[in-house]
Amino acid sequence: MIIATDLVRRPSEFVRVPVAAKSTVCQFCAGHEDETPPELLSYRDSSNHWQTRVVPNKFPALRVEEVYDRSGEGLYDKMSGVGAHEVIVETPEHKTSLAQLTDKRVEDLLWAFRDRVIDLKRDIRLRYVLLFKNHGEAAGASVEHSHSQLIALPVVPIQVRDELDGARRYFDYKERCVFCDIVRQESASGARVVLETEEILVFAPYAARFPFETWIVPRSHYSHFETAHASLIQSLAWAVRSTLRKIERALESPSYNFVIHTAPVQEAALDHYHWHLEIIPRVTKIAGFEWGAGFYINPTPPEEAAQFLRDVGL
Amino acid sequence: MIIATDLVRRPSEFVRVPVAAKSTVCQFCAGHEDETPPELLSYRDSSNHWQTRVVPNKFPALRVEEVYDRSGEGLYDKMSGVGAHEVIVETPEHKTSLAQLTDKRVEDLLWAFRDRVIDLKRDIRLRYVLLFKNHGEAAGASVEHSHSQLIALPVVPIQVRDELDGARRYFDYKERCVFCDIVRQESASGARVVLETEEILVFAPYAARFPFETWIVPRSHYSHFETAHASLIQSLAWAVRSTLRKIERALESPSYNFVIHTAPVQEAALDHYHWHLEIIPRVTKIAGFEWGAGFYINPTPPEEAAQFLRDVGL
Repeated sequence: MIIATDLVRRPSEFVRVPVAAKSTVCQFCAGHEDETPPELLSYRDSSNHWQTRVVPNKFPALRVEEVYDRSGEGLYDKMSGVGAHEVIVETPEHKTSLAQLTDKRVEDLLWAFRDRVIDLKRDIRLRYVLLFKNHGEAAGASVEHSHSQLIALPVVPIQVRDELDGARRYFDYKERCVFCDIVRQESASGARVVLETEEILVFAPYAARFPFETWIVPRSHYSHFETAHASLIQSLAWAVRSTLRKIERALESPSYNFVIHTAPVQEAALDHYHWHLEIIPRVTKIAGFEWGAGFYINPTPPEEAAQFLRDVGL
Repeated sequence: MIIATDLVRRPSEFVRVPVAAKSTVCQFCAGHEDETPPELLSYRDSSNHWQTRVVPNKFPALRVEEVYDRSGEGLYDKMSGVGAHEVIVETPEHKTSLAQLTDKRVEDLLWAFRDRVIDLKRDIRLRYVLLFKNHGEAAGASVEHSHSQLIALPVVPIQVRDELDGARRYFDYKERCVFCDIVRQESASGARVVLETEEILVFAPYAARFPFETWIVPRSHYSHFETAHASLIQSLAWAVRSTLRKIERALESPSYNFVIHTAPVQEAALDHYHWHLEIIPRVTKIAGFEWGAGFYINPTPPEEAAQFLRDVGL
C-alpha cells in the first residue's frame, strides 16, 4: 500500500454521494414479513414486535440444500454451491441507518451474527462464515433498508487463508500474536487512535489501503468472533455505533463496507489469529493499478484520518 | 469466484453510465504540451505532430529520484517511494476513446508500453512495471482524455507474486504452462471465445470474477510483455481495439480497466508464466463480500458474456 502524501486529499475534498433513504417502505419493513423467505431468527420487544430479524437471501449465492460436490472440467475445478446466504434486518424502520440506531440495536446485530454462526457451524461442510455489511449504493448495497449479511462457504477463501498464514508466520517468529502487538503499539503511540475503551481499540491501520479505513479490535485475544462474551459484545456495539457515527459526520454519510475478520469456524482456537472488524468508507474509486497489483494508493495518511475522526463529536 | 446463475443479469440489465467526454480541451490535448512535465517519449507523424506521447504523472505516487530505503517503525515496515509513474497519452484529440482510435494508434500505445519498460528496467531497483488503463470515472480515471498509465515499483506486488507462484505450482506438477493449456482448451471448446486470430485468443475466463471480464492471450509462450515482436504487437493491437469496440457496443460505453499481467522485469524468461492482458468492464459494484474474502459473485456466466460479445459486430 502506498500512502501518496503528495496528493493528500483532505476530508472535505472527497466527492461523496450522501446515503439517504429514497423510498419509504420495502420487504424488510415491519408489516411486510410475508414478502421475505421464512424467518430464521428474530429478537422481539415486550409487545412481541421484532426489532432484529434474520431471513435467507431471496436470491442466494449459495444454498445449504445443495449436495457437496467437487469435479473437474478439463483443467478447471468446480464445486457445487453449498452454503448459506442470509440477511440480518437491523431495524423495522425503513429510514434509519445503523449509525443512527441505538447501541441496543447494534448489540442485537452482533448477537444475531453470533447466534447464526453458532447454528451454521454445526454443518461441518461449512468452513467459513463471512459477516459483513454493505451500506449505500457505492458499497454495493442493492436494498436501502438497513441490513447486514452473512455468507457461509464450503471453503476458506484464499484471501482469508493468506491473512491467517501471515499471522501464523509472525507468531512462529515472535511467539506473540501480531494483532495483540499492533493493539499495544497503537494504544501506546495514540497517533492513529480514533476511540478506545478498556476492552476495545479503534484506529486507522498503519498501512491503510483506503482513506478513513478504520479497524475495531478487541484488546483481549480471541481468534473466533462467535466466542465473544456479553460484556465484549456490549462494548463492541458502542464502539461500532460511535465509529460509524463519526464517519457519517466526518464524510457526510458516505457509503461503506464493514467485514468481520474471524477464524474459520471448524478450526480450534488459534494463538496466532485475532478476530476484528474492518470498516472501509467508499470515498475513492478502485482503479486498474489496485486490481492488477493488490497495491493501493491512499491519498489520506492514516494519522490525519484518525485525528479528523477523533475531533468529530459522537 | 461464484457464478450466481440464479440471479443471472443479462447485458441489458446493467446500470451503466456511458463514458462520454464532457469538456473539449485539457493538458493532454495537442497545443497544451507545456502544461505537462517534460515529455519522455513521443511518436510523430510525417508533419512532426505527436500522435502518442509519454509524460511523467504530475502527481506521481512514486519517483525515481527517491533513495531506496527500507526501515522499521516499531513492528511495521516502510520503504521509500522509489519508482516511476507515467502517463501514455493515446491521441492528441480530446474526445476519441481508445476503442474509436485506429489500429495504428493502439499499436503505438503497445509500443510505448514496450519502449518504456525496456528503458525503466535498466534501473535494477525497479522490480515490476505495471501497465494499465482506467477508462471512465467508475474505473477510477480522473482525466477524460484517453490515456494509459505505467507504474514501476521497487517490489513485486504480493498479488503478482501469488499469480506467478500459482502458475509455477501447475508447471511443477504438469511440466506445462497453465496459460498455454487454458488457451488450448478454450480454443478447442469455443464456448467462451470472443475472438481469435492465428496469434491471439480472446475469451471470457472460466472463473470470471466480473460480468464481461475478458482476457487477451497470445498463443505463443512468452513470460515478458516487453519481448513481444512486431507481428504480435500488430495482431494484439487489432485484438485489443476489436474487443474494446465490442465491449463499448455491447454495454453502451462502460467504464473499464485493463491490466497487462507480465513477469517481473528483472527476472529471466520463465517457462511457467505467460503474459496476457485482462479487461474488466466496471458494470457492477464491488461489495463487502468481495473485499472480505477475495471471492466474487458474478451474475453473468462467462459463456453468456462471450456469446453476447461474439454476436456484437466489430
